[in-house]
Amino acid sequence: MTTVIAVDAMGGDHGPSVTVPACLDFLDAHPGFELALVGLSEPIGRELARARASGRAGIRVVSATQVVGMDEDVRTAIRTKKDSSMRVAIDLVKDGHAQACVSAGNTGALMGTAKFVLKTLPGIDRPAICAVLPTRTGQVYALDLGANADCTPENLLQFAIMGSTLVKAVEGKERPSVGLLNIGAEDIKGNDVVKKAAELLRASPLNFHGNVEGDDIYRGTTDVVVCDGFVGNVALKTSEGLARMLGDFLKEEYTRSVFTRLAALVSWPVIRAFRRRVDHRRYNGAALLGLRGIVVKSHGSADRLAFTTAIARAASEASHGLLERIGEEVAAMAPLAASPPSAQAAL
Amino acid sequence: MTTVIAVDAMGGDHGPSVTVPACLDFLDAHPGFELALVGLSEPIGRELARARASGRAGIRVVSATQVVGMDEDVRTAIRTKKDSSMRVAIDLVKDGHAQACVSAGNTGALMGTAKFVLKTLPGIDRPAICAVLPTRTGQVYALDLGANADCTPENLLQFAIMGSTLVKAVEGKERPSVGLLNIGAEDIKGNDVVKKAAELLRASPLNFHGNVEGDDIYRGTTDVVVCDGFVGNVALKTSEGLARMLGDFLKEEYTRSVFTRLAALVSWPVIRAFRRRVDHRRYNGAALLGLRGIVVKSHGSADRLAFTTAIARAASEASHGLLERIGEEVAAMAPLAASPPSAQAAL
Repeated sequence: MTTVIAVDAMGGDHGPSVTVPACLDFLDAHPGFELALVGLSEPIGRELARARASGRAGIRVVSATQVVGMDEDVRTAIRTKKDSSMRVAIDLVKDGHAQACVSAGNTGALMGTAKFVLKTLPGIDRPAICAVLPTRTGQVYALDLGANADCTPENLLQFAIMGSTLVKAVEGKERPSVGLLNIGAEDIKGNDVVKKAAELLRASPLNFHGNVEGDDIYRGTTDVVVCDGFVGNVALKTSEGLARMLGDFLKEEYTRSVFTRLAALVSWPVIRAFRRRVDHRRYNGAALLGLRGIVVKSHGSADRLAFTTAIARAASEASHGLLERIGEEVAAMAPLAASPPSAQAAL
Repeated sequence: MTTVIAVDAMGGDHGPSVTVPACLDFLDAHPGFELALVGLSEPIGRELARARASGRAGIRVVSATQVVGMDEDVRTAIRTKKDSSMRVAIDLVKDGHAQACVSAGNTGALMGTAKFVLKTLPGIDRPAICAVLPTRTGQVYALDLGANADCTPENLLQFAIMGSTLVKAVEGKERPSVGLLNIGAEDIKGNDVVKKAAELLRASPLNFHGNVEGDDIYRGTTDVVVCDGFVGNVALKTSEGLARMLGDFLKEEYTRSVFTRLAALVSWPVIRAFRRRVDHRRYNGAALLGLRGIVVKSHGSADRLAFTTAIARAASEASHGLLERIGEEVAAMAPLAASPPSAQAAL
């Protein structure tokens, strides 16, 4: 059976002008897949025509008459946008017509709609956002990056199970190492939730490395880094801000005078190699883990290359049977990872 | 009266070989101050002799026979190291013989000893670590960066008052803007503590900008960024890790071949200007705010330039009357910033 990826063609800052060319690029590189382009038929058709890809094999247009705005409230999106490109793409996954979906739409609406439509996997209290980041030695999977501001120790263990399974599935690593994000001030090593989560992780069959600190993320100390969504979101956004500032500073210095512009010219291959190495577009596509369906969130500002990466991530997760594997792992660790009844009632 | 800065000459990874030359550099640039170099007389004397500065005006050696190890537990340090260079330097501040102290010793022991010896200021429940970071437009003061893993809304307001007063005092800004670090996922805007803290900040006379996200730190959106110590520590360490990785990658690309080494040579003025601009040594020296004395924590790995910066920061805080000003601001906002009786009992 051909694996079908539903693509929310309207989401993101650019909509079909980026998503449609990205879909075509993806298919060129991965001819075995089928893409369902969901959204307003007219602009999608126009972009396909522009790329001379109307009627191309592997592409199917699924009409949706609404679009979820980038600042739209999740409740409004769920209640009033039942025919949005985002919703229809998720519905395709729910109904088994697609094995995964991708959207560059707003994170809150995407997570909320996905939870509402797909529900969470058995044994998982809350879904988490898991992104891939570059490290000195390769890459690291970090979660949660913003879905859950407050977490219980059991939530963190569930994130660890899901992150570890994701790495196992798509990277083929046998026993991915898991780090628990903590702080290094000698006085107080973390808060109660993190301490309790460390106990759960130590008792689990996961390859738990122990606590890691912020600088371990980019050092590549572990394959997976687990944290609550508040901390993870701050770490991610802070990194984005710092990387952008450093990039801007470098650019400013290289464009300061005729001489520095010459230096930039001579350095071009070096700068290009450097930029390629840390190109965030090559890391685009965060997995919304813990749902009964594969959902990948692309950065809203994704360009063609970045959005292609996100589609490829969804395709990889689907073809590696991620959902089934997470289901098995969670079932195997069920007694450990289950929230106590009181905590479950509070959720 | 001459302002005296007590310098823990033994702290940090390098001890007197770095701290003593840094003290001399500081005095060259700031001849009005007096430094009390605290530690083992022999190595300090040797470093002074090596620099031909034995008996130099403005330098006084205060003997201390013990040294707090970089991994030493705070309790051990307080109980068994009553004559450590760190403790004696803090004692000098307590007894009024110095107006500030600086140490590159371990953060936990320094904060613990300073709290034990100096106590907190009236109206402040917990001291916080406040560091300066570079931004696109200048610099930002961020706190807490690791002293308090869990914070109440009142703690965060107190941090905001202290950070704001610090910027007012040493930067001369009239009404520094204060941002509250939060997350941007549309679904859940932060946790209860942050929401409550935002209310307190809005009701305060501080120039509260509102919530900021991780990327606002380096964007320089506000003069002060307030967060709990867990989040702040992760953001800081993550930044350090990312900056180091990017620096290493750039270096690797520039040293890859004869051609790239040539490009590096041509680019040298650009690279130097860039490095100067983001040189962490120019931002060394975190203020331990909220104590009845000025204490500045230098990075443990600080070199001569970095440690000189930390001394200069302590000197600036002392000569701008930071303590008195924080006292006044806290008193002015006392009803707002006081923890509820129940929370105080729990502290």
